[in-house]
Amino acid sequence: MNDRQHRVTFQPQGRTTYVLQGTKVLEAAGRAGLPFETPCGGAGVCGKCRMRVTAGVAEPTSADCDAFSEAELAEGWRLACQTAVRGDMVILAPEESLFGKSHQILMEARESADHEIMPAVRKVHVRLDEPTLEDPRADLMRLESAVGPVKADLELLRELPGRLRAGGFAGTAVLTDHHLIDFQAGDTTAVCCGVAFDVGTTTLVASLLDLCDGRERAIVSAVNPQVSFGDDVLSRIQRASSDPAGRQELRSVLLKAANEMIAELCRQAHLKADDVYEVTFSGNTTMQHLLCGIDVSLLGVVPFVPACGRGLLTTARDLGLSVHPRAAVYVFPVIGGFVGGDTVAGVLATRLVERDAPVLMVDIGTNGEIVLSAGGALYAASTAAGPAFEGARISCGMRAAAGAIEKVLIGADGVHVSTIAGKPAVGLCGSGLIDAVADLLSSGVVTPEGRLLPPDELPADLAEPVRARVGLDQRGQAEFLLAGPETGQASTRICLSQRDIRELQLAAGAIRAGIAILLRQANLDVSDLSQVLIAGGFGSFIRRSKAQRIGLLPGRIDHRSITYVGNTSLDGARWALLSTAARQRAEQIARRTVHVQLSEDPQFQMEFAEAMIFPES
Amino acid sequence: MNDRQHRVTFQPQGRTTYVLQGTKVLEAAGRAGLPFETPCGGAGVCGKCRMRVTAGVAEPTSADCDAFSEAELAEGWRLACQTAVRGDMVILAPEESLFGKSHQILMEARESADHEIMPAVRKVHVRLDEPTLEDPRADLMRLESAVGPVKADLELLRELPGRLRAGGFAGTAVLTDHHLIDFQAGDTTAVCCGVAFDVGTTTLVASLLDLCDGRERAIVSAVNPQVSFGDDVLSRIQRASSDPAGRQELRSVLLKAANEMIAELCRQAHLKADDVYEVTFSGNTTMQHLLCGIDVSLLGVVPFVPACGRGLLTTARDLGLSVHPRAAVYVFPVIGGFVGGDTVAGVLATRLVERDAPVLMVDIGTNGEIVLSAGGALYAASTAAGPAFEGARISCGMRAAAGAIEKVLIGADGVHVSTIAGKPAVGLCGSGLIDAVADLLSSGVVTPEGRLLPPDELPADLAEPVRARVGLDQRGQAEFLLAGPETGQASTRICLSQRDIRELQLAAGAIRAGIAILLRQANLDVSDLSQVLIAGGFGSFIRRSKAQRIGLLPGRIDHRSITYVGNTSLDGARWALLSTAARQRAEQIARRTVHVQLSEDPQFQMEFAEAMIFPES
Repeated sequence: MNDRQHRVTFQPQGRTTYVLQGTKVLEAAGRAGLPFETPCGGAGVCGKCRMRVTAGVAEPTSADCDAFSEAELAEGWRLACQTAVRGDMVILAPEESLFGKSHQILMEARESADHEIMPAVRKVHVRLDEPTLEDPRADLMRLESAVGPVKADLELLRELPGRLRAGGFAGTAVLTDHHLIDFQAGDTTAVCCGVAFDVGTTTLVASLLDLCDGRERAIVSAVNPQVSFGDDVLSRIQRASSDPAGRQELRSVLLKAANEMIAELCRQAHLKADDVYEVTFSGNTTMQHLLCGIDVSLLGVVPFVPACGRGLLTTARDLGLSVHPRAAVYVFPVIGGFVGGDTVAGVLATRLVERDAPVLMVDIGTNGEIVLSAGGALYAASTAAGPAFEGARISCGMRAAAGAIEKVLIGADGVHVSTIAGKPAVGLCGSGLIDAVADLLSSGVVTPEGRLLPPDELPADLAEPVRARVGLDQRGQAEFLLAGPETGQASTRICLSQRDIRELQLAAGAIRAGIAILLRQANLDVSDLSQVLIAGGFGSFIRRSKAQRIGLLPGRIDHRSITYVGNTSLDGARWALLSTAARQRAEQIARRTVHVQLSEDPQFQMEFAEAMIFPES
Repeated sequence: MNDRQHRVTFQPQGRTTYVLQGTKVLEAAGRAGLPFETPCGGAGVCGKCRMRVTAGVAEPTSADCDAFSEAELAEGWRLACQTAVRGDMVILAPEESLFGKSHQILMEARESADHEIMPAVRKVHVRLDEPTLEDPRADLMRLESAVGPVKADLELLRELPGRLRAGGFAGTAVLTDHHLIDFQAGDTTAVCCGVAFDVGTTTLVASLLDLCDGRERAIVSAVNPQVSFGDDVLSRIQRASSDPAGRQELRSVLLKAANEMIAELCRQAHLKADDVYEVTFSGNTTMQHLLCGIDVSLLGVVPFVPACGRGLLTTARDLGLSVHPRAAVYVFPVIGGFVGGDTVAGVLATRLVERDAPVLMVDIGTNGEIVLSAGGALYAASTAAGPAFEGARISCGMRAAAGAIEKVLIGADGVHVSTIAGKPAVGLCGSGLIDAVADLLSSGVVTPEGRLLPPDELPADLAEPVRARVGLDQRGQAEFLLAGPETGQASTRICLSQRDIRELQLAAGAIRAGIAILLRQANLDVSDLSQVLIAGGFGSFIRRSKAQRIGLLPGRIDHRSITYVGNTSLDGARWALLSTAARQRAEQIARRTVHVQLSEDPQFQMEFAEAMIFPES
C-alpha cells in the first residue's frame, strides 16, 4: 500500500479533496461533500453514479463496460463506485448523479432561497419630477412617491436635498425594510451585497453574497482571535466576566477580525465596504453576546440565561462594523444559553422542521449541539464536548490545517496516515484522532474502557507493523506512534497518548449521552431515526463508520443514513441574508424548540458514564 | 384719567394681567385669555358674567344688586361687565361663567387630551419570576412576558442582565412605542415627563408636562438666540446656506438654548433631565429644519421645497438634546416651505378641521400664517409679515417685555399709554403700535394712505393734548410722541415715525391680502366667516377693534367673533406629547391642507397693494 495522496477535483462544483491511492472516487466525492447516488450500495450494478473523468487515468472496469457505450467510455464516462484513484484527477460530476440527502437538503434550501431572494435591503433607481411651484412637495415625500413610505435616518435627511439635486432628481434609493439608508448618484442597483458570518468558538467564516442574484462572490475564514483568551466557551465567559475591560476586550478582538474579513471579502470581490448593506451573524449564544458587547456572566452560571432570545436587529454603526454605516445587522435568535443561533441556523438551513420521519442533527464542534426533529417537534441540547475534535488538549493535536494527519488506517498491513494537502505530518487533527482510536479499538490495542495497552499486554495476534508502533513514553505510559522520523513522514514523533484517548472518550461520550437523552425525551429509539445529519465544518472530515466505531454516532443505524450537511450555521446565515422570510422561520424555530438541559436530566450522568465505554465492535 | 395700572388675578386659572384704572373686569379677563359669557354684550342685563371678588374693592352697581342676593353680594359676587378695576384684585371666575370659543376650544382640546393621555412613552413596573433551570428564558423575553414584545436598544441590552438582577427581577421598564429605552430599579412609574417646544423665529417656549396626568409642571420661554443672525426666517436661511459652518452654527445655538430651557424646566420641577423621555417640537419649517441640522438652502429659493414633510421621529441623542439619551423626539409635519409645523399644531389644537361653519385662523408673528377651514377643506398660506409685530424694524420698537408700551389710547382727553408690568416706558411693542396707529387714523393724524401729518397739516378739530404730541424729527419728518421725559413716563423720548407706520402697513397689508386670497380660493366672503381665531403669543395682546381699524383683521365681522386662542403651536406640541393619536391627526392635517402659494397667485400683488391702504373708519 502506498501512502501517496492524490488530488481529486470535482467540476462544475469546483471542490477538491486529497485521498490515498486506491480510494474510490465515490468515497472521494463524499469527502468533498458531493455524495453520489448509490442505490446498489456501490456494487457497480445500478449505474446511477455516472461521472466523467476529464483529467487523469481511470481504466474502465467490467462494470463500466456494462454501463457505458464505447463512445461514452472513450469520453471518460465511468461509475464512481468502480473507479479507484491512481493519480490526480478532475471529475465532471453531473447534477443528476449526485444525491445524498445532504445535497438535496442544501440544494432544496438554496433553490428555495433562490426563489425567494427577498433581502431586507433593496435598491430602487428612481427618476423624480423636479419640484415646481405647482408641485413643491417635500423632498422625502417626492422620493416616497417612488419607493413607498420610508423612515429616513436624520443623518441622511440632512444631506438628502443636496444629493437629490446633484443627480437632477434621479438616483438610487437604498432601503432596509422601510428605512431609507442611502441615496446615491446614478443607477447603482446592480451593486448590492451582504455578508453572512458564522462565528464559531474556534473558527470564523464569512461569505459575501450578491443580494441581487444570491450568488456567493467571495468566502474567507479565520481563527477566532478570542482563542488567545481560552479555547472553549466557558473560559471566554470567565474572561469577559472577570473585569470590566474583559468584555470590551473580547468584543474588540472579534470585531477587528470580522472587519478584516469584510475588508478581505471586498478586496476579492472588488467592492467598497460601503457596498455592503446588510450583515447576518450566526454563532453560539456566547459568541453572539460577546460580538454585541452584551454581558455574558450569566451564561457561566446556572441556569445559563441569555440576555436576549429573539433575533437582534441593529446597525453596523452601533455594532462597530466597517461596512455601510447604516447597514442593517441581524444576529440570529437563540434557543438557550448553550443552544445558540448556530443551531437555529442549522435547523433552518436543513429544513429539519419540515421532515416527517425522525431526524437527528449533530454539530460536532467545541460544543456538541444536538437537535432531534420528530413528528413536528424539535428538541435541542448542548454538550460540552470540549475542543478535542478541534485538536486542542490532544498531546500532538492541531486544527485541520496543512500537515495535519486527518486520516489513519491501522490494519494487518500496518499503519497508514494521510495529511491535509499531502504535506509532511506536523500533528493530529480530530478526524485522524477518531480514525486512530477506532482502528486501535478494533485491533485490540485500546480496550473498550479506553485503556491503551502497554507493549507487554498487547494481543498475541496483533500484526507486527502495528505492534512495532506501541511504546512507552518518558513516564512509562503507553503511547502509539502515528508518524515520525523513523516512518519518514514527519520530522518529530507524532504519538497518541493515554490521555488523548481519555479526552476523546469525554468528548464522544458527552455527545453520545446527549443523543440518548434527546431520543428518550421524544420516546424514540435509535432505530426510529430515518437519518443522522452531521453538521459543522469538522463534521465533514470524519468518517462515519469510524465515528460509529468509537460511539460518537449511533451504531445501530446504516452508515449510509448518516449524511454530511456542511457548515449549516453559515448556510443559515446566508439564507437569512437573502430572505427576510427565512428570518421569520428562524424566529419560529428558536421559539418552538424544546430546550433540554442535559445537566439537569437525572439520567444524564448515568448515560454519560455508560457512553464513556467504547461500544463493542 | 389716571395712567395707574392695577394687577388683576383670576382664580382658579392663576392668570394675571395689568390694566389701566377703570378698565372693566370683563375686559381684563379677556386680556388674560379668559373671556366671560356676554350674550347681552356687556349691558349688565343677562347676568351671565358672574364672578366673585375675593380680594380688592368693588362697590356693587345697581345691576349687581338686581343680579345677586344680599348674601351673595356680601360674599363678593359681582357682574364682570359692571365692575371697574380700582385697585389690585383677585377674582374667582367660575367655569360656568367663562365663555369664548377660545376657552371652549382649548378646553375641549385639553379635556379631550385629558381623556386620551396616551403618550408614546409608558412606564411599566414589573415583578418577574426569577430564572430557574425549568424556566431559563432569556432576560429580554422574560421582560416581554410582562410588557409585550419590544425592540431593545443594543446599548441597553448590554446592561439589562445586570440591571434585572440588581433589582431582584423587579423594576420599571420604560418604553416608547415598542422600544425598550430603559430599565430602572424600583417603581419609578410616577415619574414620567416630557417637554413640548414651540420654536418661534423670535421666541422659544417650552412646557414640561407630567405624562402620567397631563399636568403642566413648568413652563419657560427664551429669545431664540438665532436672532443674532437675523430677525426673520430668510436671513437665517441665507446665513445657514452661506458657508458650511453656518448651518451647524445655527443648529448649535438653538440646541444650546433648548438644552438650557430643559435644564431650567427640570430645575423648577425638581426632576433630573433623564426623567424626560419624550420631546415634541413645533415650529415653522425653517426652524424645524435648522433644529434638525437639515439643509435649508432650498427653503430660500423658488419653489421653497422642504426636505421632509411628515413628522420626524428621532432620538434625543441623535438630535443632541440633553434629556434621556434614548428619549423619543417628534418634530411636527409641515405643509410647505413656509407653512410649517406650528400651523399644523395650531389646526390640531383648535380642532379647526372639525368645525362646520367657515373659520379663519390667523397667527400673527414674524411670518403671518393664515388657515381657512371651510366645509371640511383646509387652505393655508404664509405671508412675510416681517418682524414689525415683534417690535423689530420699528424705530422705538421692542418685544413685549417689561416696560414695553403695550396699550395706547388717543382721544379727546389726550394720550394714555400703559406698559407691561407697569414699568417706566422703554419702547413700543406690537400691540401698542397697532393701538397708536388705529387711534391716530381715527383722529385724522394719520391718513388712510398711511401718511403721518406734520404739525401744520393736522386737522383743525384735533384735540390740543394730541396735537401737542406731533412734532418733527431731526430730518424734518413728522413724528408722534408716545412717552418721554416731558410726559413723566420715560427717561427717553419714545416716538412713532413715518417709517414705523410704513412697516405696519406692509405687515398688516400682507396678512389682509393673504386672507382675501384664501377666502377667494374657497369662494367665500368675509361675511361667511363664523369666527376668526387669533393665534400666537402676540395675538393675545392685540385689541381686536384696533386690529380691525388698521385692516389687520377683517372689518366686516363682529369683533366678538374674533377670539384669542393663545399659543396654539405650543398647545399642539403639548397635545402631541400627550397623545400619539394627536400625532396621527397632525399628519392628516399636514397632508390634507391645500397650500396656497400667495407669491404665485396672480391676484396677490393687487390685493396687497389695496391692503396697504388703511380702511375708512
